[in-house]
Amino acid sequence: MRRYIGIDLGGTKIAAGVTDERGRILAKAESATLAGRPYPEVVRDMAASALRAMEEAGCTAEEVEAIGIGIPGIAENKTGTVIFCTNLGWHDVPLRAELAQYINKPIYIDNDATVAGFAESVAGISQGAGCSVFMTLGTGVGGGIVIDGKPWAGVHGVASEIGHLTMVIDGIPCTCGKSGCLERYCSATALIRMGQEAAVKHPDSQIAREAGQDPSRINGKLVIDCAKAGDPTALEVFNEYTRYLALAVNNVISFLDPEIVVLGGGISNAGGFLLEAVRRWIPSFLMFKTMPYPRIELAVLGNQAGIIGAAMLAKSIKEEGEAYASDQDR
Amino acid sequence: MRRYIGIDLGGTKIAAGVTDERGRILAKAESATLAGRPYPEVVRDMAASALRAMEEAGCTAEEVEAIGIGIPGIAENKTGTVIFCTNLGWHDVPLRAELAQYINKPIYIDNDATVAGFAESVAGISQGAGCSVFMTLGTGVGGGIVIDGKPWAGVHGVASEIGHLTMVIDGIPCTCGKSGCLERYCSATALIRMGQEAAVKHPDSQIAREAGQDPSRINGKLVIDCAKAGDPTALEVFNEYTRYLALAVNNVISFLDPEIVVLGGGISNAGGFLLEAVRRWIPSFLMFKTMPYPRIELAVLGNQAGIIGAAMLAKSIKEEGEAYASDQDR
Repeated sequence: MRRYIGIDLGGTKIAAGVTDERGRILAKAESATLAGRPYPEVVRDMAASALRAMEEAGCTAEEVEAIGIGIPGIAENKTGTVIFCTNLGWHDVPLRAELAQYINKPIYIDNDATVAGFAESVAGISQGAGCSVFMTLGTGVGGGIVIDGKPWAGVHGVASEIGHLTMVIDGIPCTCGKSGCLERYCSATALIRMGQEAAVKHPDSQIAREAGQDPSRINGKLVIDCAKAGDPTALEVFNEYTRYLALAVNNVISFLDPEIVVLGGGISNAGGFLLEAVRRWIPSFLMFKTMPYPRIELAVLGNQAGIIGAAMLAKSIKEEGEAYASDQDR
Repeated sequence: MRRYIGIDLGGTKIAAGVTDERGRILAKAESATLAGRPYPEVVRDMAASALRAMEEAGCTAEEVEAIGIGIPGIAENKTGTVIFCTNLGWHDVPLRAELAQYINKPIYIDNDATVAGFAESVAGISQGAGCSVFMTLGTGVGGGIVIDGKPWAGVHGVASEIGHLTMVIDGIPCTCGKSGCLERYCSATALIRMGQEAAVKHPDSQIAREAGQDPSRINGKLVIDCAKAGDPTALEVFNEYTRYLALAVNNVISFLDPEIVVLGGGISNAGGFLLEAVRRWIPSFLMFKTMPYPRIELAVLGNQAGIIGAAMLAKSIKEEGEAYASDQDR
């Protein structure tokens, strides 16, 4: 039976899993990333997690077709190198060569949001859509583009950096060194900042009271819970936030016009409350108001998306390579 | 010999041409659009221009494989209908069915900027690039996306509306009904507006003097000529304009990471002066400053792009249909 290994390399956790050809996880294993360690130690633990998952799944090395890895950074698949991985302090790490010492199979690497978006298009909400765009709303904003059923990494591997599109010219300084980046207005971090500012201005609001007038105790969930409960201050913040988000979604639509735009990441746990708010804003930004436009939906795979997407990335690239080779044989 | 007909339907002019398989124009013919007429009259003149071009090229009806049409609006290829064409006052016009009364060949329709961008990727500056993005800088800003060597129209036919991405939230009202659209900051219209405002503020500037203190006499060429001549006021306008343009180009890069971004349309006649200015701004907006990024170049096909791109669009879609049909036969 053909098996694939997906490894989700996060800032705090390594999760590895074995999947079948349709991306169903048969077994998984985890370990701590302990960011800051020399990279060979991290890669050794990635391999150990993968091997444990294989053992648990009763999967032999012969059955493994390929390995995919989702990283919180930028990789170059040609050389198998991680170019940047800020959270881990990685720069020009030869991840493929290092991992191949433990498991000698074809290894493919891509950005974690690209991988998660691909997972949704193989086994989640955007299943069957030839073209989809995935946005993770977390500490930052990540993007995953699928075109013709394949993950789109761009020509130089730096596509779908949706979080760093300029949303406000000369706006709020970003951790990336630029200013006014989309993730300064659409991430969980942005929602928290807006909530804190509003709570300071309106000490009588429910959100300020529930935080005990301590802005540092405000998180995304509190803003959303207070908005759901009808607190006018939290609702105003939520409306402002979802307007930014809808503007961002609309820019994605005007540029690429995918079949579906998928919202994932921590903020998407707000569920229908978030989705309906974004959907309500969209028509005011549409250019051709009488024409059909992409569906906007919530991600459904949650934490599983990293493993599934990495495994299916490996399957997709490996099969494309084989199709190319068989074309050459003709 | 296989021949293709490309028709460039503009607000003032219809241009039709016969091309070979590589997009070389063998003959062409033009007529006036006379926008505002009932559409059957316009389509009749499109057919007449195409037939005259065929006659001049010595091309028989049997040799014509397919017809492509670039329109200044939005079309739906499935039904061959023009959904919107504001300049011509067209709404839901059955262009394919109407034209087929005169020339019964496969007919494909797409947006003029998409078609012009595709022309550059077949026979112009982006030749050989699998993925490119074309931006026309004219009265408005149009976009043409090529992915895997094919024009990308989006899932609902509304992709690459780059001119109507929101660039400034709650910014300058746009002709489309929204506000802050990219084309309000990056089009020739925007450059003229900035030049007029600056000339009023600085009556001693070269640009104000050359316009005889009459802002309505300022056009894009005057702004650029005065900037080239070193007029500080015009230079400041030009720097502001090219900064907006570079921000727009950088957003295209961060989203899709194509191999090349091509600048066309009237403003691109400023040549190297424009290109160098945009290229100078880009590094300050890049996220991964040490990584390779797309080339930025000027379009080279000029007015020919409409005919060439429409003809090659027809070739591309027809061949894709044939490949699909032959796949089904297996």
